[in-house]
Amino acid sequence: MAGNSTGKEFVVTTFGESHGKIVGVTIDGCPAGLALTEADVQAEVDHRIPRDPKITSARVEKDKITIQSGIFNGFTTGAPITMTVENRDVDSSDYEAMKDLPRPGHADYTARVKYGGFNDYRGGGRFSGRITVALIMAGAVAKRLLNQFGVDVFAYTKAIGNVKLDKPLDYDFVRSRRYKTAVRCPDVKCAEAMEAAIAEARKEGDSLGGIVEIIGANVPAGVGEPLFDALDADIAKALFAIPAVKGVEFGAGFKSATLKGSENNDAFGTVNGVVGTLTNNHGGVLGGISSGMPIVVRIAVKPTPSIGKEQQTVALTTMENATLTVAGRHDPCVVPKAVPAAESAVAVILVDHMIRAGFIPRVLKAQGP
Amino acid sequence: MAGNSTGKEFVVTTFGESHGKIVGVTIDGCPAGLALTEADVQAEVDHRIPRDPKITSARVEKDKITIQSGIFNGFTTGAPITMTVENRDVDSSDYEAMKDLPRPGHADYTARVKYGGFNDYRGGGRFSGRITVALIMAGAVAKRLLNQFGVDVFAYTKAIGNVKLDKPLDYDFVRSRRYKTAVRCPDVKCAEAMEAAIAEARKEGDSLGGIVEIIGANVPAGVGEPLFDALDADIAKALFAIPAVKGVEFGAGFKSATLKGSENNDAFGTVNGVVGTLTNNHGGVLGGISSGMPIVVRIAVKPTPSIGKEQQTVALTTMENATLTVAGRHDPCVVPKAVPAAESAVAVILVDHMIRAGFIPRVLKAQGP
Amino acid sequence: MAGNSTGKEFVVTTFGESHGKIVGVTIDGCPAGLALTEADVQAEVDHRIPRDPKITSARVEKDKITIQSGIFNGFTTGAPITMTVENRDVDSSDYEAMKDLPRPGHADYTARVKYGGFNDYRGGGRFSGRITVALIMAGAVAKRLLNQFGVDVFAYTKAIGNVKLDKPLDYDFVRSRRYKTAVRCPDVKCAEAMEAAIAEARKEGDSLGGIVEIIGANVPAGVGEPLFDALDADIAKALFAIPAVKGVEFGAGFKSATLKGSENNDAFGTVNGVVGTLTNNHGGVLGGISSGMPIVVRIAVKPTPSIGKEQQTVALTTMENATLTVAGRHDPCVVPKAVPAAESAVAVILVDHMIRAGFIPRVLKAQGP
Amino acid sequence: MAGNSTGKEFVVTTFGESHGKIVGVTIDGCPAGLALTEADVQAEVDHRIPRDPKITSARVEKDKITIQSGIFNGFTTGAPITMTVENRDVDSSDYEAMKDLPRPGHADYTARVKYGGFNDYRGGGRFSGRITVALIMAGAVAKRLLNQFGVDVFAYTKAIGNVKLDKPLDYDFVRSRRYKTAVRCPDVKCAEAMEAAIAEARKEGDSLGGIVEIIGANVPAGVGEPLFDALDADIAKALFAIPAVKGVEFGAGFKSATLKGSENNDAFGTVNGVVGTLTNNHGGVLGGISSGMPIVVRIAVKPTPSIGKEQQTVALTTMENATLTVAGRHDPCVVPKAVPAAESAVAVILVDHMIRAGFIPRVLKAQGP
Repeated sequence: MAGNSTGKEFVVTTFGESHGKIVGVTIDGCPAGLALTEADVQAEVDHRIPRDPKITSARVEKDKITIQSGIFNGFTTGAPITMTVENRDVDSSDYEAMKDLPRPGHADYTARVKYGGFNDYRGGGRFSGRITVALIMAGAVAKRLLNQFGVDVFAYTKAIGNVKLDKPLDYDFVRSRRYKTAVRCPDVKCAEAMEAAIAEARKEGDSLGGIVEIIGANVPAGVGEPLFDALDADIAKALFAIPAVKGVEFGAGFKSATLKGSENNDAFGTVNGVVGTLTNNHGGVLGGISSGMPIVVRIAVKPTPSIGKEQQTVALTTMENATLTVAGRHDPCVVPKAVPAAESAVAVILVDHMIRAGFIPRVLKAQGP
Repeated sequence: MAGNSTGKEFVVTTFGESHGKIVGVTIDGCPAGLALTEADVQAEVDHRIPRDPKITSARVEKDKITIQSGIFNGFTTGAPITMTVENRDVDSSDYEAMKDLPRPGHADYTARVKYGGFNDYRGGGRFSGRITVALIMAGAVAKRLLNQFGVDVFAYTKAIGNVKLDKPLDYDFVRSRRYKTAVRCPDVKCAEAMEAAIAEARKEGDSLGGIVEIIGANVPAGVGEPLFDALDADIAKALFAIPAVKGVEFGAGFKSATLKGSENNDAFGTVNGVVGTLTNNHGGVLGGISSGMPIVVRIAVKPTPSIGKEQQTVALTTMENATLTVAGRHDPCVVPKAVPAAESAVAVILVDHMIRAGFIPRVLKAQGP
Repeated sequence: MAGNSTGKEFVVTTFGESHGKIVGVTIDGCPAGLALTEADVQAEVDHRIPRDPKITSARVEKDKITIQSGIFNGFTTGAPITMTVENRDVDSSDYEAMKDLPRPGHADYTARVKYGGFNDYRGGGRFSGRITVALIMAGAVAKRLLNQFGVDVFAYTKAIGNVKLDKPLDYDFVRSRRYKTAVRCPDVKCAEAMEAAIAEARKEGDSLGGIVEIIGANVPAGVGEPLFDALDADIAKALFAIPAVKGVEFGAGFKSATLKGSENNDAFGTVNGVVGTLTNNHGGVLGGISSGMPIVVRIAVKPTPSIGKEQQTVALTTMENATLTVAGRHDPCVVPKAVPAAESAVAVILVDHMIRAGFIPRVLKAQGP
Repeated sequence: MAGNSTGKEFVVTTFGESHGKIVGVTIDGCPAGLALTEADVQAEVDHRIPRDPKITSARVEKDKITIQSGIFNGFTTGAPITMTVENRDVDSSDYEAMKDLPRPGHADYTARVKYGGFNDYRGGGRFSGRITVALIMAGAVAKRLLNQFGVDVFAYTKAIGNVKLDKPLDYDFVRSRRYKTAVRCPDVKCAEAMEAAIAEARKEGDSLGGIVEIIGANVPAGVGEPLFDALDADIAKALFAIPAVKGVEFGAGFKSATLKGSENNDAFGTVNGVVGTLTNNHGGVLGGISSGMPIVVRIAVKPTPSIGKEQQTVALTTMENATLTVAGRHDPCVVPKAVPAAESAVAVILVDHMIRAGFIPRVLKAQGP
């Protein structure tokens, strides 16, 4: 039953429900000596809600984070770091009515089966996208830690529905511009087309999915444990923990299935005496170990299952066919919210593996005598 | 450094190298009381080498498996099951020559960095596709165990290069026919086109990748731990442990990113009083928990990196540019070999999760008084 | 760095510091359907502070517990259960003065070395006996769960200094009387002698240790995984996580080293058709697996290291010899506080192993249709 | 069901049965670059069987070890190291007769209950003391690795029955002399008394237990994770995995329960500018973290349960009282065999924790360019 933790050295455990008191996270294994304030974490959490309310749900979640433990005199202590946000602005009335009518595409049915009906179904409970706040709090710590070692993780919206940003991108451009648009696409033109598509879907009472690409820049070569704890395997696993993710691919990904070896292989070369590859179809991971090239991974995010249209379902108390129209507040597209969550998932795994591989020490810089 | 195990209750640990003495696996946590013989395991391992030598490497690996522990009087005892195959027909001479010339697309470079040059590089060592024999031995046990509970896992080659089997398939047809063709595609016509494509690539000294689809049939609803140990997350992780896998997707997968919610959602209905969905875009997993629908997952397998064409690389001793042509025996396409490995990865995870969720007991059926 | 969790199926993670905001615990893997209120947990936490202030520290800790997640409509949901207590009545001034003077017998020095001086040293920080509140909150849940399956865990003070309760005890007597005396010894006569010994030590500015015996009653035979996860091994490990524990023994324990096999072996017999042993020198565990006899385990608790007498130490800033007299509030004997902590440690491990062995299901009793 | 592994970074998994084909071990996570030969491991395994057959069983186990994987060109590669010994000289006939008569003090009954009768009961199967060969093979690797970092682990027999070596010992004397006597007691006089006691017990058809003390010398300060993965907690857990261990204590251990704080506290002082304690009642671990002082831990080993005297048991097929006299070859005292096993358990845990704490790197010394 215990599956709410990830990591072997940098262990992230999340807790809380969408309509319960809090959502929270504990990081066990964060090295001592990292400067960390609540403002640092708050800034990342704020990225979850795009500035533009027209593309997000009417529920305005004021997620004020609190660090409950693990920080002393402004630095991490090596003890577990627990962070929480309270749930406010919660309206559970809509959910009570549909408690026995599982919503298509949601976990209502599977959760009910698994937990014998004891699960907190309000707002999806433990299965709500809201739980990604916990992941993002952990990601904030992970990203600050990675920055100490020159590593940067950033993601952006590559596609929404059929609108796709399909051209070579400068990574500095992506990093500095990704949160400048509400859809988290650094290309303003493309972002506008994406927003228009979302507006259209909303008008139809429908929803859209999309693709997020995550970059891990400056990851040193040699990170990752081959076989079962391969770096790409652990990253993929963490990304699938984000609700609505249905696919993960690295580098050329599914396209590589159609290439020839001579096209797909990345030739080795050197730049300033460092070995690298001239192309990056491998997406920064070879044999489960980082190559020193940017880690490039994409996730497929399915369209929000909550839509305004009538859908067919089953009344679980009577086992008869029924229809439902999902009330409540819901986003026509959760792809923008997936961007900081995906960054966080990758950052958390990178820290875990960099500790495991010896690139990040247990104490950043010992104090005093 | 320790990443050669997977699972929490049904723990699979692999060991051995391509050109070392053996390749082996230990299963810790297999329930007691499962009838198991070496012949059962041998049959699955034999699926790894297609009957048709023209599409596989010249290296004819006679993989005779031995059960070393964990079986008594024909049944599993609850103690660790260790199984091994010896490495024979090994020719390491080719590799010695290229030891300092990392092969593009292989793990030669990343392994050397990670292990400080101590890794066994012969034949890719621990990174060889040969290591999947260990996974397949574990998968053989997992599949037998799943069968006791009505669950069946089977995979097939869905695409090789640009030849794709893209039509609705009857799962019984897939299960019964998948190993009838050398490329592991149940459709004979399509298989012939795939074989032709491989032959063509071989002639050019090139290689091809492809797509494998894995089906988990009759998995009961309620299997999987939400969040980090979601069923799809763990399956994806295990699949990425197979060399050459660059992408994993469930159900509609990446295509779902382009669908609308009203198109992608699977409506609920009942069949014989059991809740199910009328379509299966979700691929059998909702919220990380099985829905009772078939689990459908696809992997992208990159083209074999070993090709006969000259490639650019770096001589690691001098850091100068160099070229290499990969000698040694290599397959123009490893997709067929990935089929039993992928089945095994999914089967192993399903057993682990079915034990965790309480669907498989610790003793299958107690003996005597 | 991550070592703040225990368990494989019933995973308990603690966080918080003695003088930080909170002390808390998250249980991941608690079965769904257990009725649980804050009052249930509060009752166990209240056992930590003996009623009699003369034997405990002047610091009156009002430990009001809050359940933050994992409960819905009065039942556990299967989601992580997080519980916290706030730290109040905290006076950190004493500690600041001695920050560079490690107290003998405490973790001041080792923590400083390990965490490079970043650890929160106030009141011992993460190493304070106060952290056992987190364990006791988890133990409260574990004990309620065990009770559903007829299992009872209870401990008592067997010795304080040289005052020892050394006679056969009726377990019902122990269970019902253990919290009736301030020293947690069910025998009132013996308890009075223990209290007198503590009072004497306090008068001298000194402290006392003692022995706690823990009983696990009605544990079914067959619980425990042989070898590394043996039931006794995991219980011992959890008990050593309680500050001040220096020894753990089962059944005849160290005395068995002086017995002959014919004296130490417990003959098998039957009672009402159930196999048992006529004596219990084995303490309820054979080969790492429970035998069905009561689990009997004892811990040695060292005397409180904080004493009023002057002690020799080293000034870590100058590396010169120094003396210190520990100010602050401290108990002359922590053995009574160790009683509920030890019960909790054993209860938490028993639940974990009973889930692992299949004795406790994932859902206690499914609700509704 | 999976409990045959220990460690988080240096993961040791054992497999095999007393009367099966082999006993073996896999180490996953051993750093690359350690020089290791079969002779190194063989030497440690040879310590298990005292030279003097009069105090050991008639079964002369020729334990020839084989390294199956993980070594290349004489060095560890970073890949899993699997080592095996074959079981020879096996006579299972005795056990068949007593299959339904559980031997007092053995795991026959508990194993049968746990595994529903499927367990391999021959010679105790997985519960035999013979399984410690696997631990000792792992310990051999761990000890060599520790030696590279100046750490030494050695144990000796401190007591057998009522014969006790109870005087201050020079650790160099212990280390160099411990395997010079058949009972593994470095004091020859005391060893002779122990041997006499064993001979006396054997003559009576009885058996003896004893105490083994293990020293971890030169362990740097700062090793160990506080709370659940405390260094002492993990060491205790590993020691309880050795058959017949009924108690574990550190430093003053159970005696500390009778001391006053002023007697038990170890004052800090400096030697050559390094902080240490003037006494070592704490046994080298404070707050779960090593202090830099020698780690001192003792185990109570119960008398061999197999004795020549008639004992009372229950016939499990009929549930009627019965008697049995244990035939087969058995040692009147297994304490000497426990010495290398205990060393190995401590060494394995120390390596795991030294890797976790960053004292041992992933690659010992990178080769070549």
